[in-house]
Amino acid sequence: MKYLIVGGVAGGATTAARLRRVDEEAEIVMFERGRYISYANCGLPYYVGGVIPERERLFVQTPDTFKAMFNVDVRVRHEVRFIDREKKEVVVCNLESGEEYRESYDKLVLSPGAEPVRPPIPGINDERIFTLRSVDDTDAIVHFIEEKKPRRVVIVGAGFIGLEMAENFHSRGLRVTIVELAPQVMNVLDFEMAAEVHQHLKTKNVAFFLGDAVSAFERNGDELRVQLKSGRTLVCDFVLLSIGVRPDSRLAKEAGLELGPRGGIKVNEYLQTSDPDIYAVGDAIEFPNPITGKSMPTFLAGPANKQGRIVANNIVEGNRYTYKGAIGTAIAKVFDLTVASTGMPEKVLKEEGIPHQAVIVHPGSHAGYYPGAQPMTIKLVFSPDDGRVLGAQIVGYEGVDKRIDLLASVIQRKGTVVELTEIEHAYAPPYSSAKDPVNIVGFVAENVLLGKSRHIHWYDILNAPQGEYYLVDVRTPEEYALGTIEGAVNIPVQQLRARIAEIPKDRKVVVFCGVGFRAYVAERILRQHGYTEVFNLSGGYKTYQHVTQ
Amino acid sequence: MKYLIVGGVAGGATTAARLRRVDEEAEIVMFERGRYISYANCGLPYYVGGVIPERERLFVQTPDTFKAMFNVDVRVRHEVRFIDREKKEVVVCNLESGEEYRESYDKLVLSPGAEPVRPPIPGINDERIFTLRSVDDTDAIVHFIEEKKPRRVVIVGAGFIGLEMAENFHSRGLRVTIVELAPQVMNVLDFEMAAEVHQHLKTKNVAFFLGDAVSAFERNGDELRVQLKSGRTLVCDFVLLSIGVRPDSRLAKEAGLELGPRGGIKVNEYLQTSDPDIYAVGDAIEFPNPITGKSMPTFLAGPANKQGRIVANNIVEGNRYTYKGAIGTAIAKVFDLTVASTGMPEKVLKEEGIPHQAVIVHPGSHAGYYPGAQPMTIKLVFSPDDGRVLGAQIVGYEGVDKRIDLLASVIQRKGTVVELTEIEHAYAPPYSSAKDPVNIVGFVAENVLLGKSRHIHWYDILNAPQGEYYLVDVRTPEEYALGTIEGAVNIPVQQLRARIAEIPKDRKVVVFCGVGFRAYVAERILRQHGYTEVFNLSGGYKTYQHVTQ
Ligand SMILES: Cc1cc2nc3c(=O)[nH]c(=O)nc-3n(C[C@H](O)[C@H](O)[C@H](O)COP(=O)(O)OP(=O)(O)OC[C@H]3O[C@@H](n4cnc5c(N)ncnc54)[C@H](O)[C@@H]3O)c2cc1C
Ligand SMILES: Cc1cc2nc3c(=O)[nH]c(=O)nc-3n(C[C@H](O)[C@H](O)[C@H](O)COP(=O)(O)OP(=O)(O)OC[C@H]3O[C@@H](n4cnc5c(N)ncnc54)[C@H](O)[C@@H]3O)c2cc1C
Ligand SMILES: CC(C)(COP(=O)(O)OP(=O)(O)OC[C@H]1O[C@@H](n2cnc3c(N)ncnc32)[C@H](O)[C@@H]1OP(=O)(O)O)[C@@H](O)C(=O)NCCC(=O)NCCS
Ligand SMILES: CC(C)(COP(=O)(O)OP(=O)(O)OC[C@H]1O[C@@H](n2cnc3c(N)ncnc32)[C@H](O)[C@@H]1OP(=O)(O)O)[C@@H](O)C(=O)NCCC(=O)NCCS
Repeated sequence: MKYLIVGGVAGGATTAARLRRVDEEAEIVMFERGRYISYANCGLPYYVGGVIPERERLFVQTPDTFKAMFNVDVRVRHEVRFIDREKKEVVVCNLESGEEYRESYDKLVLSPGAEPVRPPIPGINDERIFTLRSVDDTDAIVHFIEEKKPRRVVIVGAGFIGLEMAENFHSRGLRVTIVELAPQVMNVLDFEMAAEVHQHLKTKNVAFFLGDAVSAFERNGDELRVQLKSGRTLVCDFVLLSIGVRPDSRLAKEAGLELGPRGGIKVNEYLQTSDPDIYAVGDAIEFPNPITGKSMPTFLAGPANKQGRIVANNIVEGNRYTYKGAIGTAIAKVFDLTVASTGMPEKVLKEEGIPHQAVIVHPGSHAGYYPGAQPMTIKLVFSPDDGRVLGAQIVGYEGVDKRIDLLASVIQRKGTVVELTEIEHAYAPPYSSAKDPVNIVGFVAENVLLGKSRHIHWYDILNAPQGEYYLVDVRTPEEYALGTIEGAVNIPVQQLRARIAEIPKDRKVVVFCGVGFRAYVAERILRQHGYTEVFNLSGGYKTYQHVTQ
Repeated sequence: MKYLIVGGVAGGATTAARLRRVDEEAEIVMFERGRYISYANCGLPYYVGGVIPERERLFVQTPDTFKAMFNVDVRVRHEVRFIDREKKEVVVCNLESGEEYRESYDKLVLSPGAEPVRPPIPGINDERIFTLRSVDDTDAIVHFIEEKKPRRVVIVGAGFIGLEMAENFHSRGLRVTIVELAPQVMNVLDFEMAAEVHQHLKTKNVAFFLGDAVSAFERNGDELRVQLKSGRTLVCDFVLLSIGVRPDSRLAKEAGLELGPRGGIKVNEYLQTSDPDIYAVGDAIEFPNPITGKSMPTFLAGPANKQGRIVANNIVEGNRYTYKGAIGTAIAKVFDLTVASTGMPEKVLKEEGIPHQAVIVHPGSHAGYYPGAQPMTIKLVFSPDDGRVLGAQIVGYEGVDKRIDLLASVIQRKGTVVELTEIEHAYAPPYSSAKDPVNIVGFVAENVLLGKSRHIHWYDILNAPQGEYYLVDVRTPEEYALGTIEGAVNIPVQQLRARIAEIPKDRKVVVFCGVGFRAYVAERILRQHGYTEVFNLSGGYKTYQHVTQ
C-alpha cells in the first residue's frame, strides 16, 4: 500500500507515525510545503517571548529522525498543488526547484491546517503587519524585533493566541495595545468571565480597545498608524494580526471534495472525506459539535493529534474507529491568570435557543487553611431539563487546568450536574479541599436544578427597572460598608432568622453575599419561611464587581 | 422533627449543615466528645510541621458560628454513650460535669470516625508514644516538641499519614526514622511505584526499615528504645504510631446495629444502618467497593463529606439519593513528590484473582519544550477482557493530582482504556501536551488490549531463569554504555530495520528503552517481521532501575 500525507505537523506527522506502527510494509510519503515538520506550533508564542530560549526545542522530529525511526519519506518544501482523484495521484511542486511531479496513492490523508484571516483592510499588506502560524512567521517576528528594536506593538484580535502574544511581547519589554471587535477579550468566554481578564490586563499596563476595529493601516516611515472605526488612531512600530483562522480547504475544494457549511472539509465519523480514499484531519476539517449538533471546525492540537491516530487505524484496519467530535476544550496562560473553557458558553446557548441555566462559584484552588490557596471563578451551564452539563469556563491561577479537564470529561460523556457532585477526587490539603471545586459547582447547580435554589445574574440586576428587586446584602456590616449594590439593605445571614420580618413578602427578593454561599443559606431560610420569589445573585458581589468596575 | 448527630467533624458537621439547609424547622443537635468541631483533620500534620502557622486556621466552624449560621445546637465535650433504639433515645455524658442525660430523636446520624490501631506491644502506653487523630493529639505532639526539644523521632507505619508526618517532622529539624512491616512504604501502591518514594526518602536523609516491626518499646530516662523484630534497636526521643485506623463502631455494635465483615457499620445504598431511623457516614462505615464488590471502610474526607450530604437529603426527603461507593482515590505530598492512587493496585487484583493487565509510562507534566516540565510515572491496571480501568497510581511532581482525578473519574464510571484515549483535555504548553499523560497511558493500554503490543514487567525479568529472554536494548550506544540490563544486546531502534537478522526468531525477545516508547516502535517492527514472542518492558529501564537500585 502507498499512503500520501499532505501537511507534516500536528495531524500529518501523527498520522504518519501511527501508520508506520500499524503498517510496517507500506510506503509512506509526507509532504510539507514549509521548511519544518513536526514542530510545536503552540510553543511559538513562548519562543517569541524568550520563555523558550532555544529554537531547536520547537522541533519534536526532523525529516531525518522521522526517516530513521519511522521509515517515512518526508519531503519538506514540497507543496501538494492538486489532487487528481480519478487517477489517485497528487500533483506536487518542489518549492526549491520549482519542478512539478505526480505521486500516486492508495490512500491520501489531508492535514493542511488553517490559514490566518487577513481581511482586505487598506494597508494590510504592509511588511510590518505580521501573523503567527508557522516557524517562518515566528522567525520573521523575532528577526524584526531583534533588528528594529521596536517599542510598541498593536495586537489586532484578542483571542487565545492574541493574548498569549500580549504576554510574550510584554515580557520582551514591548508596550502592548490590543484592539478587539467584540466587547470583550477571548470571545469563547461569557462577558463576566472575560471581565476578570480585563482587570488583569489593566494591572499589567496592557492597553485594550474593545468593540472597535481597524479601518486602515498607514505606514509612516518606521511608524505604523492603526486607524480604528471609532476614529481613534494608534501609533506603533508593528502589528500582530490575530483575528482568527479559517480551514485551509483549498486543495479539497478544487478536488471537488465536499465542504461543510463553515468552509472546512466535510468528513464522516471515520474522518473520511466524500472520497473514500481520502481522509482528512485537524484544523482543515469540520465536524458536528457534540452539544449543538452544528458542523464546525476545531482549531486545537489535541483533537488534531487524536484524529491522526484514528485515521491511521481506519486506513490500515478498515473503518472501525470513530471520532466523536470535539467540545472545544481550550486553555491559555494570560500573564498570571489561567483562562480555560470547554463546551458552550452561555451566550451561544442563548443564540441557539438551547435551554440552559448558569451558575457561578468562586472556590479556592486547595484547602483554605493550607498556604497558597488561590481563588478561581467557575461558571457552569447546564440543561434545566435533565441537568446535562453543556459548558464550563474557569478563570483563576493554580488548579484551573485540573478542573477544566474534569468538567470537560463530564461534558464529553454527556454527564449531568449530579455526576459532578459525585466525583471522587484525590484530596490532601496541598491539592484540593474535601469538596473539590468541581463538586461545589455540582452542588450549586444541583440545587438550582432541583429548585432548592434559584439564581439570578448580574445582567438581570443591571437590566431590571429600578425597584424591581428588593436587594438584601447578607454579609457583615463591615463588608457592606466597604461597598455594596446600590439600594441593598444589610441583614447579615447570622441575624436573618431574627430579623426576617424586615423583608417584604410581596417583593421579588435578591439575596447576595461575597461569593454566593452565605446568600444561599439566607435564601434557604427565606424560601422555607414562605418567600417564593427569592433569588441568589450568582457569583455574589465578587462577580457583580467584575462586570461593573 | 428532631435529628441527632454523633460526631462533629467531617461527616457529622456536613450532615448538620445540609440538614439545616433542607429543613429549616427541625431541631438539630450535634454531639462531639472532643473540644472542637468542624476542624481540618487533614491539616493537622501541616500544623505540626509549622507549614500552617496559625492554630485557628484548623477550625472551619465553631459551635458559635454553627449556631448563628445553621441554628444547630452543638454540644462539645458531650459523648454519646448508648443508643436506646427502642425508645429512640441516646444516652449522653457531659464530659465536663460527668452528668448523664437522655435525648430523644426522630432520626439519628452516626459519624464517629475511626480510632488509631494500638497493638498490645510491650511498652506501648508510654507517654512518649503518640498517635495523630484529633486536635488534642496534635496539641500534645506540638507541646512535647516545644517543651522537650526532641531531636529524633521514630515513625511506626509508613502509610499516607506516616509519610506526611515524616516530612513535617523533618521540616521541624527532627531526625526521622520509619519502621514499616510491609516491604515498602504506602502499601496501596505497587512495589515499583513505592520504590520511587524510597529513592526520594533517601535523598532527604530519612532512614527507613522495611519488612520489620516493633517488638517492644523501652523507656530509658528521656530516651525511647524501639526494639524491632529483626533484632535491631532504634533509639529516639519519641514515637509516632501511625499503623492505621479502624472504624469506631463501638456505639453501633452495642446498640445491636449490624456491622460488616471489616468491623465497620453496615449501611445500605441510602447510607441507612440496619435500623431505618439511624444513618451512618464516614470512617465508621463500610460499603461494597465498586471494583471488587467487597465490603470495606474508606478513611477519606471527601467521601465522608459527600455521604453527609446524601444522608441529610434522605432523612428529609425520604430515601431518594444513593451512595455508589468509593474507589479509594488518595493523594499525599511526600517532600517534593506527589504520590496518588485510585482504584485497585495490581497486587490486590492478583490476590483477588481478578484478571488484569498493567502498563507503566513516564510522561512529562507538560510539553517538554516549555520550561519546567517534570517527569511522572503512571501505572494503569485494566481488564484484559473489556479494557475496563481498574486502578491507577501516579508518582511525580507537578500535575499528578490532575491526572489522578481524571483517571479516578474514568474508573468511577466504569470507563475503559479507550475512553482514556479520547479524553479531550485542555492543552497549552504550560499545562499539558497535545496528548495528555492520560491519553498516552490510554494509547499504551489500548495497544496491549488489542494485542498490538505485549508488555512484560520488571518482576517477570527478575524472576525468569537465566537466558529465558533475549534482551534487546534499543537505546543509543551512549545510553547503553551508561548502564543496561545484564545480558542485553544493543541495537538502537533507528538501526533495527537494517539489523533485524541479528535477533533470533526462536527466542522470547524483550525489547526495552528508557521509558518504553522506542521499545514499542521496535516491538512493532519485530512483530510485523514475524516475531511473535516479543515483549516491551513496561516502564522501560527507568522502572527497572527504580526497583533494582
Ligand atoms: C501560535 C499558535 C499557538 C497555538 N496554541 C495552541 C494551544 O496552546 N493549544 C492547542 O490546542 N492548539 C494550539 N494551536 C493550534 C494547533 O497548533 C493546531 O490546531 C494544530 O497544529 C492543527 O494541526 P493540523 O495538522 O491541522 O495543522 P498544522 O499543524 O498547522 O499543519 C498543517 C501543515 O500543512 C502544511 N500544508 C498545508 N497545505 C499544504 C500543501 N498543499 N502541501 C504541503 N503542505 C501543506 C502547512 O505548511 C502546515 O505546516 C496553536 C496554533 C498556533 C499557530
Ligand atoms: C492526621 C490526619 C490526616 C488526614 N489526611 C487526610 C487527607 O489528606 N485526605 C483525606 O481524604 N482524608 C484524610 N484524613 C482522613 C479524614 O480526616 C477522615 O476520613 C474524615 O475526617 C472522616 O470523617 P468522620 O466524620 O467519619 O470522622 P471524624 O472527622 O474523625 O469525626 C468523628 C468525630 O466523632 C467524635 N465522636 C466519636 N464518637 C463519639 C461519641 N460517641 N460521641 C460524641 N462524639 C463522638 C470524635 O471525637 C470525632 O471528632 C486524615 C485524617 C487524619 C487523622
Ligand atoms: C510527535 C509526533 C511526530 C507523533 O509522535 P508519536 O510517534 O505518535 O509519539 P508520541 O510522543 O505522541 O507518543 C504517542 C505514541 O507512543 C506510544 N507511547 C508513548 N509512551 C509510551 C511508553 N512509555 N511505552 C510504550 N508506548 C508508548 C503511544 O502508545 C503512542 O503510540 P500509538 O499511537 O501507536 O498508540 C507528532 O505528534 C508531532 O509531530 N507532534 C508535534 C506537532 C504538534 O502536535 N503540534 C501541535 C502541538 S504543539
Ligand atoms: C464546613 C462544614 C461545616 C460543612 O460546610 P457546608 O455548609 O456544607 O459548606 P461548604 O463550604 O462545604 O460548601 C458546600 C455548600 O455550600 C454551597 N455553596 C458553596 N459555594 C456556593 C456558592 N458560591 N453559591 C451558592 N452555594 C454555594 C454548596 O451548594 C453546598 O451546599 P449544599 O450541600 O446545601 O448543596 C463541614 O464540611 C466541616 O466541618 N468541614 C471540616 C471538617 C472536615 O471536613 N475535615 C476533613 C477534611 S480536612
